[in-house]
Order: sequence, then C-alpha cells, then structure tokens
Amino acid sequence: MSKILAINAGSSSLKFQLFKMPEEEVLAKGLIERIGASGSTFSLETGSKQKNITKEMADHEEAVKLLLSELIASKVIRSYDEIDAIGHRVVHGGEYFSKSIKITNDVIEKIEAVSELAPLHNPPNLTGIHAFKEFLPNVPMVAVFDTAFHQTMPEKSYIYSLPYEYYEKHGIRKYGFHGTSHKYVSERAAEVLDRPLDQLRLITCHLGNGASITAVENGKSIDTSMGFTPLAGLTMGTRSGDIDPAIIPYIKEKTGMNASEVINVLNKKSGLLAISGISNDLRDIQAEAATNKRAELALEIFAARIHQYIGSYAARMAGVDAIVFTAGVGENSSIVRGKILTGLEFMGVYWDPMLNNNCGREGFINYPHSPVKVLVVPTNEEVMIARDTVKYAGNVEKKVFA
Amino acid sequence: MSKILAINAGSSSLKFQLFKMPEEEVLAKGLIERIGASGSTFSLETGSKQKNITKEMADHEEAVKLLLSELIASKVIRSYDEIDAIGHRVVHGGEYFSKSIKITNDVIEKIEAVSELAPLHNPPNLTGIHAFKEFLPNVPMVAVFDTAFHQTMPEKSYIYSLPYEYYEKHGIRKYGFHGTSHKYVSERAAEVLDRPLDQLRLITCHLGNGASITAVENGKSIDTSMGFTPLAGLTMGTRSGDIDPAIIPYIKEKTGMNASEVINVLNKKSGLLAISGISNDLRDIQAEAATNKRAELALEIFAARIHQYIGSYAARMAGVDAIVFTAGVGENSSIVRGKILTGLEFMGVYWDPMLNNNCGREGFINYPHSPVKVLVVPTNEEVMIARDTVKYAGNVEKKVFA
Repeated sequence: MSKILAINAGSSSLKFQLFKMPEEEVLAKGLIERIGASGSTFSLETGSKQKNITKEMADHEEAVKLLLSELIASKVIRSYDEIDAIGHRVVHGGEYFSKSIKITNDVIEKIEAVSELAPLHNPPNLTGIHAFKEFLPNVPMVAVFDTAFHQTMPEKSYIYSLPYEYYEKHGIRKYGFHGTSHKYVSERAAEVLDRPLDQLRLITCHLGNGASITAVENGKSIDTSMGFTPLAGLTMGTRSGDIDPAIIPYIKEKTGMNASEVINVLNKKSGLLAISGISNDLRDIQAEAATNKRAELALEIFAARIHQYIGSYAARMAGVDAIVFTAGVGENSSIVRGKILTGLEFMGVYWDPMLNNNCGREGFINYPHSPVKVLVVPTNEEVMIARDTVKYAGNVEKKVFA
Repeated sequence: MSKILAINAGSSSLKFQLFKMPEEEVLAKGLIERIGASGSTFSLETGSKQKNITKEMADHEEAVKLLLSELIASKVIRSYDEIDAIGHRVVHGGEYFSKSIKITNDVIEKIEAVSELAPLHNPPNLTGIHAFKEFLPNVPMVAVFDTAFHQTMPEKSYIYSLPYEYYEKHGIRKYGFHGTSHKYVSERAAEVLDRPLDQLRLITCHLGNGASITAVENGKSIDTSMGFTPLAGLTMGTRSGDIDPAIIPYIKEKTGMNASEVINVLNKKSGLLAISGISNDLRDIQAEAATNKRAELALEIFAARIHQYIGSYAARMAGVDAIVFTAGVGENSSIVRGKILTGLEFMGVYWDPMLNNNCGREGFINYPHSPVKVLVVPTNEEVMIARDTVKYAGNVEKKVFA
C-alpha cells in the first residue's frame, strides 16, 4: 500500500488528489486558487468532510506548505513520510518524452527546454515541481505529460505541409494534447468491451471546454485533432479550432491587432462563445438553442465538426471498432452525442436514443447489433497520474509489491 | 449556332477558347503570356494548326487586340460580329453571386467590391473584362465565378468558429473555390452514373497543383475544403492547407518575417514542395518516392489528407454514392488514387486496381459490386464557361434556340 499525491499546477492554482494505491481510493482532494493574488483560497475534501480556507499565499511554495500541513491537520496523513511519491501533470514533453518519467535534474532541464512550446503551461508545472522538491526533497516525483501518449503518431500525422526545416530547427510539428485522458479512456474502453486493447481501433472524443479527438489504433495514438498547440482541431468553448490560416493577416489588417493578439482572440474569444454570442459553456447554449438562432448554430457547428472527424479517423484506421465519449460534454450531453452520432450508420454505427438519453455514467449507448460500439467512459486523469507515478517512481513499486 | 469566347485573364496572361455552341466544339484556343513584360508571347491552336508569335504587349488591351485580329487572320472568324458572347472566369464573387451572370456596370462594381477578398485574382479578371468591353462593346459578356457553386453551403459549413462580427463586418467566412470544376464533374458524373444529380451524394476531388474536395449533395455543394482563401484544406503543390493557426506567430518569432510573409510561405513555399524538398509537381515526387524518404512522405501526406477528407464528407452526407477524381493528378495518377482509396472498404468503396491502373480518361475504377462508385472525370472549366455564357447572355439564347 502507498499514498500518492497527484498534482496539477497552473500559473495561479494547484489541484491535488491524494490516492491510496493500488486501490485507487481518493483519500483527499482539493484546489488552491488565486496563488500570488489577493484572496487566495484553499479547499480540501476528505471523505465527506469539506474545508475551505481563505489565506494569502504569495507563491506556490506557500501553497504547498499549506496543503501539506492541512493534510496532517485533517489526519489524512500523520507525517510527510507517508507520501510515497508525487506525480505532476506536465503539459508539454516535446519529443523527449513518450511516456511518464521519474523526475531528475535532467528531466527538469528538458521540461524547461520545451517550455517555449507551452509558455502558459510548462513554467507553472515546473513551479509546482520545484515547490514540492523544496519541502519533500526525498520523495520521488514523476512527470506525466499531456503530449506523451501522442508520441506514437507516425510522421505522416505529425509533419505539417510546411518547410521541413521548421520541424528540424524549431520543433514545429503536431504534438497533440489531452493524452492522459485519451490513454485512460482507451484502456478503460478495452476493459468494458472485454477485448484486447492492442486489437482495437478506437476513436476517443474528449469533449470538455477544451476538446480533442484521437484515432487510437491497437492502443496507440496514430492521429489527433490538436496540433502544435491546443488551439487546433475542433470548435471549443473559446477556441476556434482549425481555420484558413490566411484569415490571420486579414483580421490583423481589419482590426489593427498584431498576429499574437489575433491568436489570443482565436484562443480566448472564439469557438462556442463567439458563434453563439452567449457563453462558452455548452449547457447554456443547449438551453438557448430552441429560441436563439446563433446558439443553435454554435451547437450544430460543434457537433458537425466532431461528426466529420469521426468519419475522417474511421477512414484513417480503415474502420473503427468503438467510439468513446468522455469529459464534461462527452459524458453528460446526450443532445450533443445524438447529433454527433446521427448519420454514421453508413460506417456501422447504430446508436440507441434511449440508452443515450439515460447515460450520464460509464456504459454503452449502441444497439446490441451495432458493428461499431459506442461508449461513455468518464475520464480520470488524476488516477492515471497516480498509476504512472507508482509505475515510474521506482522505490514506490517496491513498497507496493514487495 | 453561336460562337462563344471563354476567357481566363491573369495578371500577365490571358487564356482563351473559342467554342461553337451548342456543339461544344473548340474552334480555337490559346494563351498569351508575359503581358506588360518583355518578350510577350502569343500562341494559337486552330484545328491541327499551331501559331506562335513573340511581340511586345504593353497591356491586356493590346493582348485582346492581337487575339481578335489573329482569330480573323487564321480564318476562324471572318468578322468580330461572329463572336456572339464572351464568358469570363472571375475567381471571387463573394456572397453576391450564387450563379453566373450577364455583366453589367452593377456586376462590375460588385466584382470590384469583393476584390479585397481575392486581391491577386479579381483585379486581373476585371482587366480582361474591360479590355473586351473596349473592343467589342456590343457583345454580351457573362461572369462565371469560382465561388458561385459553393454559395449553396449552409451556415454550418461556412461560418468559422470566430467572433461573428468578423463575418458580418469583414466577410470572413468559407467561400470555397474550383466551383466551376466541381460543378462540371458533378454533372458529368451523374450522366455517367445514369442517375439524377439531385438524388446523388458525390465527393468530388479536384487534384491539380491547387487541390480541393467538395461534398455535393443532390447537386449542391454543401461543404468544401478550401476556405476564406484557396490556401485552406488539402496539402497542395506549394500550399500548406490546414495547419494549427498558432504556428503563424511562432514562425514569425523564429524567422523575423511578418504575418503576410509567413502566409506567403504557406502559399508558395509549402505543400509537396516543402515536405519533399524536391518539387511541387507530383510526378517528380512519385518518381523519387522509392528512393527518397521525404518524397515518399510528401506522397503519403498528400494522399492521407484526401483519404481522410473523403471519410469526413461521407460522414457529412451520411454516406456517399460516388467519389469523383478530376484535374491533373486526379485524372492521371493511378498511384495517388490507389493510396487514397485503400482502406475505404468500411464505407463501401471497393476499387479495382486493374481499372485504376488503366484509367487515364473518363471511366469507372470500382468493382461492379461496389456500393460506392468511383469515377475519373476529366474536368473542363472552359466548356462550363461557354455553357453558362450561352445560358446567361440573353440575346445569345435567342440566336441559338430561336
């Protein structure tokens, strides 16, 4: 038995879950927000108990210090020694990391080296790593990368039709994101289907405020909709997904913004929010779609793009065995799932509207006779981090299995 | 009987074909190049005769003057009166034109108004129109737009996931191009299939140095791969097609180019040329693919993207009745067609390698039992211009049918 802390550090936030492994039981979880700003908040959930604290935290080290002392105060652990290993979500591993890895100085240097590719994400991830290293220098830590699962993509998928030296000199290629989630639901789908993952062609749809879709062939990501950055691919809450690149200088000229400002609009003021004019939250849009034309249009565009990607990835794998929906929208919106699945009968997808309507948890939503299965699988990136932390931390494995 | 001149005016060139209608017989055709530069050339083909002239032509008016006098000199016509109507290819019709139209001052103003959307194409197209108006003021003229066929796309297809005012204020939407070709091959495919066009779901693949693919449902374009400009969609000879838009500021930062220069690279130095490092011509790439890894990669990426678009558009139409290949590569490269079609059996595409290998002209390349038919249909944009010119010129119709 061991206790594993799974950490997701943002620029002013820190999400955590403490797992008992290998049982995968959540002993505690919580969120620290507004780190470095006024009114920092801390919330901790242990079993049925909830604790909230408002206290200034100047930096991630103070946040980690509070987190650790509160874990003891709440009696989840008696001493820091009980934390056997820590897993950190790291957004970008570049081409260095095709799987999770125990954190060493060399690993930290490589994460720094690819920070340029994820300037909003890798630096805060590193801040989290350094803060824990400060307080718990002897606890092994593992980095779990959003990009790692997609490192199996072939060149055919990841090379853009751009001057080749942009790839060689500047690392411009498709990396893909949400890898931890796509990997988790692929593995879980194989279990639910009761078929070996290495003999399955899956299309996994991670549909949250960020959204991506992946072709998983025999357990490996072979193509995914996000690209060099998480902007590409599907229409998302506030992101445009793919557009004609020539639009960028045209917007520049028309608005007077510079190229980076335009990309900022594409990341933060586009997508569902921009089409609907209402909200980036699909629930709001669904609620208005019957009476608001632009809300309806946003819903149609969102679903159509996913629908078409499914056709594209089925073509890529010469067919598909199962389609998997996950994340907020994928798990909960039967309306969106229905729109996505309608008109895929030509490729063997026969879905059951009753099952679909009733499904808010793990389960099948296809008719039994459907050659292509359709599943909802709630994602769990935190447990994936905990599993990989057990797997790669080294000495933890001994504790667990010895 | 009538004689119709079909014109395609570029910035320094003028392509022409003189048709006898309704027989669609080509009486003469040719090309004027390097207009306004030193060493302007004129070539004219009449029946089996070929004539070449090198003569300075300062502008399009001089070019038109030479063209008309050579048509008389070669005895294709005895006087200008024999030219019953002139059809002009115009690249961009914006949202004004969903079909071809007789040219009036109002039409010219509208073509000027959308020139901003096609700054490299509409102004030379207009120059051609003005030059003919100068010499043949009483001959009716018709504008045939590359964008018109795609004006039937629903909002779901043409609205980008961008701030809605970019569409309303600046006309930023998907327009699509190659419309004349997609329309021509759709109509011809219906004839060859001996089925009514308005009951067919077609995927038309126009694969030349520029390339685009269209979902044609019941005779109408409902989605197409090119976008706001002809840069979007497929990998092309020198164009990147779709990329993560966030790559643009990254290239800017790495190379010091401005956004317009980056788009210029995406238009002129990307695509097959950039991946292969050899050539923008697919024939060169095919020839090297066995021994050159990057040539092989270029070929694979080119074919894979088309393959996946076919899956995407089949999903869009809830299935497909026929896939149509046209233009240089689509008509002639059995290797590319084979790569594109392999792995589409899951959606009912069973293609015959023997028929495919032997097909350099119009014909089927599917097995007889294939639910989805696959055809090669050579495109003919010029005859489409001539047909629409007869149809929309007004008084010509009387001459033809009275």
